[in-house]
Amino acid sequence: MKTSECKQEIRRRVRDLKEESGSHSPSVSTLLKDIPELAVEVDACFLSNPYATDLFLKHMDDDLIRTGKLREVLEFYPPQVHDVRKYISKATTIPAENIFVGNGAIEVIQALMHRFVRQNICVILPTFSSYYEFASNDTEVIYYRLRKEENFTLDVDRYLAFVREKKVRNAAIINPNNPDGGYLSKEQLASLISGLRHLDNLIIDESFIHFAYEGVELFQISHEEMIREFPNLCIVKSMSKDFGIAGIRAGYGVMNSDKVAALLANGYLWNVSGLADYFFRVYADPGFQEAYDVVRKKYIMNTLMFLTQINSMGNVKAYPSKANFALLEILNGKSSFEFTMDLLIDHGVYVRDCSDKKGLDGQFIRVASRTFEDNLKILAAIKSA
Amino acid sequence: MKTSECKQEIRRRVRDLKEESGSHSPSVSTLLKDIPELAVEVDACFLSNPYATDLFLKHMDDDLIRTGKLREVLEFYPPQVHDVRKYISKATTIPAENIFVGNGAIEVIQALMHRFVRQNICVILPTFSSYYEFASNDTEVIYYRLRKEENFTLDVDRYLAFVREKKVRNAAIINPNNPDGGYLSKEQLASLISGLRHLDNLIIDESFIHFAYEGVELFQISHEEMIREFPNLCIVKSMSKDFGIAGIRAGYGVMNSDKVAALLANGYLWNVSGLADYFFRVYADPGFQEAYDVVRKKYIMNTLMFLTQINSMGNVKAYPSKANFALLEILNGKSSFEFTMDLLIDHGVYVRDCSDKKGLDGQFIRVASRTFEDNLKILAAIKSA
Repeated sequence: MKTSECKQEIRRRVRDLKEESGSHSPSVSTLLKDIPELAVEVDACFLSNPYATDLFLKHMDDDLIRTGKLREVLEFYPPQVHDVRKYISKATTIPAENIFVGNGAIEVIQALMHRFVRQNICVILPTFSSYYEFASNDTEVIYYRLRKEENFTLDVDRYLAFVREKKVRNAAIINPNNPDGGYLSKEQLASLISGLRHLDNLIIDESFIHFAYEGVELFQISHEEMIREFPNLCIVKSMSKDFGIAGIRAGYGVMNSDKVAALLANGYLWNVSGLADYFFRVYADPGFQEAYDVVRKKYIMNTLMFLTQINSMGNVKAYPSKANFALLEILNGKSSFEFTMDLLIDHGVYVRDCSDKKGLDGQFIRVASRTFEDNLKILAAIKSA
Repeated sequence: MKTSECKQEIRRRVRDLKEESGSHSPSVSTLLKDIPELAVEVDACFLSNPYATDLFLKHMDDDLIRTGKLREVLEFYPPQVHDVRKYISKATTIPAENIFVGNGAIEVIQALMHRFVRQNICVILPTFSSYYEFASNDTEVIYYRLRKEENFTLDVDRYLAFVREKKVRNAAIINPNNPDGGYLSKEQLASLISGLRHLDNLIIDESFIHFAYEGVELFQISHEEMIREFPNLCIVKSMSKDFGIAGIRAGYGVMNSDKVAALLANGYLWNVSGLADYFFRVYADPGFQEAYDVVRKKYIMNTLMFLTQINSMGNVKAYPSKANFALLEILNGKSSFEFTMDLLIDHGVYVRDCSDKKGLDGQFIRVASRTFEDNLKILAAIKSA
């Protein structure tokens, strides 16, 4: 336990780092570099499946490290994106002409926002901040606010009426949504996509869709097949969360072939690193996909147990989530910053203080599900905070 | 030695792959995947210092692989680019506000071309094709042709007159130039930069500058300090060639702080992978820089010996180069494709067939300098081709 003076000093330095990071939280490595006396045991800011990281690292160890082939991956230019698109096509059965490969999903979002989004874009609040921050200067951002008293649930009919009334030309929807985890069923979202067919671009971000579930079989959900019918649809796929490899920067978009051709006509030729290329080769391997689906289901189970227990605590309220995290409202009178600092300094558990998130009225934090053992530490920390 | 029928079939398949690769040559990994019976011993397409690769991999092995820290680099989000800019600033003494970090130099080129280059751009032929291919649709590309009979030397006064006459608004110059290796001295280029101060943007690509030399001390040359005096100047720095790490995708641009701020205002926040972040941390280490300068000089010496020997062969003419490669004109009546295929199929030496390079009138190949041992193989192959 640290003295209160020492805690005060750490709080001050975290606040400075937060100010440098804009609308994002400083990473654990940034924290530790500036405040080496901190002991971070669990990074519960970070929204990924750690069991999938284990699986991928095992493959990489066998294929690249033990064989000495890592050198080739790092020394030489990776193949052009055309090769990478073929692997993704093999893994997904989406034609290669509909696949745009990005240096992480964030590059797909940036390319869509800069190249195709014109006039205005409707963004749902709360949301991932890049959907409004990356808008070009001449693009108006129109906010549609989810209501706390409705558990941040999206009402499809009310949303469609809003889009018509505001003459929206482009829209972005994250499903499940970040930071609240609110989920539209496959059927609801399909009907929404159909109702938005008149927009110039409809971006559906499926970064957390591998953690959502409908039937007891926990089958994988996606709307990427719908691009065949709706040419305005752009599906954003992040590999960082599902596969636990955020440091590799791998993602792609599924969209109309004209959009992909326009993007590739004057850019994006070598935006995939050697390791991202290797990841996509592994991704296209049916044996890997089968092993992956086992750890995906294991992680969903683990997350379900975690979220169930959070709900039974008295000092926070958890909003309904089908993602791998929960949005918690703090009920014991502490500010979200104080609560976050108590978890960090007293328990080594780093969670996301949501005080900078547009559209959240109150004291909120976001907590990720990690391994079973780490989740026990997170639960104990929240309980005593 | 392969039968002529078998050679014919390999030729046909390389030609198909070449067509898929546009104005670039297929990578060795793409070749080997499609034509597994090929045995590539030396990749002399690839323009990097292999001794620098050795040095970096040794660091990475000690820091990340033996310690088990590789997981952190791959699993978690890398820090935002602001941290990375600080490392580069430390290594170069350029203020962080003037540094734009890219996913390889190619992203810096793409960002400059899409965001700031308007009306027209003057590109010197022959050149690296992205300087005309990445131009936006509404940007006119004005070509300034170097002359074979002048050894592809740039005449500064004639070039300045051309720029005035054509009302050029933007220009790109690679120094030493790719694919011929032609070099403007530090003094000549400084006077050119001054003469082009009226342009909107002047892009100087220093991808190969670490291989150029002036005094016998082989000091490092750069024009990045000149951005203080010339706000239209943008210096492109690729780490792929100097440090032999093309697969990691690391590069940056040095430019006016207003341009950097405009780019970062709505994008480019997480475009650096965990490994690129690690590379830049190593890059900022004075001990690494000192060791790097030793292998840089060793490689320059090695390249000098290589280029000297190429000049003494009868079947090719080498144009003057201060880069780590030479442009060779084929004098024995073979086409550049035939010559390239003979080197590849009979000797396992893969060189760049330049038949698709705009502005080259004749039969040309480009040959990279590799290790001392590999260079001996390249020389033997050229001699007998």
